[in-house]
Amino acid sequence: MSRTAFSTAADGRVVALCGGIGGAKLALGLSRVVPSDRLTIIVNTGDDFRHFGLHVSPDIDTVTYTLAGRSNRDSGWGRDGESWRFMEAVKELGGESWFGLGDTDLATKAVRTQRLAQGARLTEITGEIARALGVGCTILPATDDAVATIVDTDEGALPFQHYFVGRRWQPRIRALRFDGAERTRPTREALAALSAEPLAALVICPSNPYLSIDPMLAIPSLRAAIRAVRAPVVAVSPLVGGKAVKGPLAKMIGELGHAATLQTIADHYADFLDILIADEADSGAAVTGPKTLFAPTLMHGLEQSVALARTVLAAADAHAADAKS
Amino acid sequence: MSRTAFSTAADGRVVALCGGIGGAKLALGLSRVVPSDRLTIIVNTGDDFRHFGLHVSPDIDTVTYTLAGRSNRDSGWGRDGESWRFMEAVKELGGESWFGLGDTDLATKAVRTQRLAQGARLTEITGEIARALGVGCTILPATDDAVATIVDTDEGALPFQHYFVGRRWQPRIRALRFDGAERTRPTREALAALSAEPLAALVICPSNPYLSIDPMLAIPSLRAAIRAVRAPVVAVSPLVGGKAVKGPLAKMIGELGHAATLQTIADHYADFLDILIADEADSGAAVTGPKTLFAPTLMHGLEQSVALARTVLAAADAHAADAKS
Repeated sequence: MSRTAFSTAADGRVVALCGGIGGAKLALGLSRVVPSDRLTIIVNTGDDFRHFGLHVSPDIDTVTYTLAGRSNRDSGWGRDGESWRFMEAVKELGGESWFGLGDTDLATKAVRTQRLAQGARLTEITGEIARALGVGCTILPATDDAVATIVDTDEGALPFQHYFVGRRWQPRIRALRFDGAERTRPTREALAALSAEPLAALVICPSNPYLSIDPMLAIPSLRAAIRAVRAPVVAVSPLVGGKAVKGPLAKMIGELGHAATLQTIADHYADFLDILIADEADSGAAVTGPKTLFAPTLMHGLEQSVALARTVLAAADAHAADAKS
Repeated sequence: MSRTAFSTAADGRVVALCGGIGGAKLALGLSRVVPSDRLTIIVNTGDDFRHFGLHVSPDIDTVTYTLAGRSNRDSGWGRDGESWRFMEAVKELGGESWFGLGDTDLATKAVRTQRLAQGARLTEITGEIARALGVGCTILPATDDAVATIVDTDEGALPFQHYFVGRRWQPRIRALRFDGAERTRPTREALAALSAEPLAALVICPSNPYLSIDPMLAIPSLRAAIRAVRAPVVAVSPLVGGKAVKGPLAKMIGELGHAATLQTIADHYADFLDILIADEADSGAAVTGPKTLFAPTLMHGLEQSVALARTVLAAADAHAADAKS
């Protein structure tokens, strides 16, 4: 069977855990390789917040726009062909302008807010918006409940967006907590996706483990479901040569008392990880724990996203084949 | 003293009660004749509602944009130079598109919603937005509380905007009620404006008495304050030749069992009205109750708004002079 087509687990399903920009690039690649009805992207909602009264789900929207081919490829977030008249008018009124909301992006937030007020679940709404924009695969929030990432910093406890966007991740981090996670249940759809048989692979996208993946892992029964997955679990390292491709990961790893190494990533996912895919720039680095493979992981366009998706799935297939033999 | 300048009551204050489009045109005229620090426009909030999670105050925004010289002069509502990318994106998502929200108009709603969430009063926020857009006089909501106009129709009870915009005022009206008005207090600012001394005139703008003025009059202590005003109370008739200049007034007067005549307007305000200014098209019509004057009342531009404002103030001055002599 050719590696250019979806393989071994040709009948299997693929689930990916994903944050925003970096993770979404791999999700895009997966969406071009795995048939739509077999791919589920479970997305972080720890960054969600209310702004101007609107329910903002940054990672869900980034994944949705990216998979719909409607993302702003320069910034990685927001929509393509966006206009900013709303923000200009907010500034004229002296309103808060630290969080950018484009005119068309606002519509996603507004429709979500209205559907929530009507009693719809975030899971349903996420599906409605994704379908309206032409996304074929399933995008799921990890939970329909509120789980708010709070960043304890040397400037005090900051809600995630105030730390990340408002303060441009400059305050020094002491700890992260995920308010509400302990009491939260994942959605039945997320649990069903993780327990689907046959599952070909569970993919941890190259998102920030602390900010994007941990809010999901902090939900006890979601973490238990991930640990119970029998299919290969493959993570792509968000660190390349000890640095983050984008964002605060390398800075915050140090602040949290860890080294910016592949071993730190492997250890972080130690209780369920089978395979770590690291960038070829790190070739030869010794990692204890998961099987470690080196491959190009930088995704500057669709072609590289698809290539990395194929690498991930091939590694899962090989692992599954090894396990059987 | 020339009638081209603010007059007798040159030291007096002017208060106007106002709804949306038609009323705002007279408010604009008043704002060009009365010094800013002596003019207060008290605006209907019965049409206010939440849409997409945002606090929409249609009449306050219409008055604010009109007085700021920023209104859309073609439609009478919304802002000039508006763009509609948000609405287009809402439609693409299958969201509710029956209520038009322009990209820049949205900013007003968003900033208001955020300030309310921060605990600010609608009165404060209305002032902040008006000042940011360059309005000099004081624009006040009648109350900071929720008073919702409910339209009982042959299709059932409809929230105001669903009746007015969603159903284009086609359902037959049986009655109007103002949910919450009985339990509501006007703001201290509105009461202070009405009891200011010396007050030169209280102006009832040519707004729909049932939809725009009654939600304010339904607040018991506001109506009491209006009845206690010793300055001349001058209303401009919204009916011209038995027809509404715009909107559903003539249709709903019939549905409510009244005749579309000046007498109906005079009777509606009977407990406090001194002077009714009616259009010259109705010259000679006999009206029992208030002193009735006939003058051009159609306002197609600033010049006519200013002329009508001068007519209104001159009538108040003459009435006050008569009362003294």
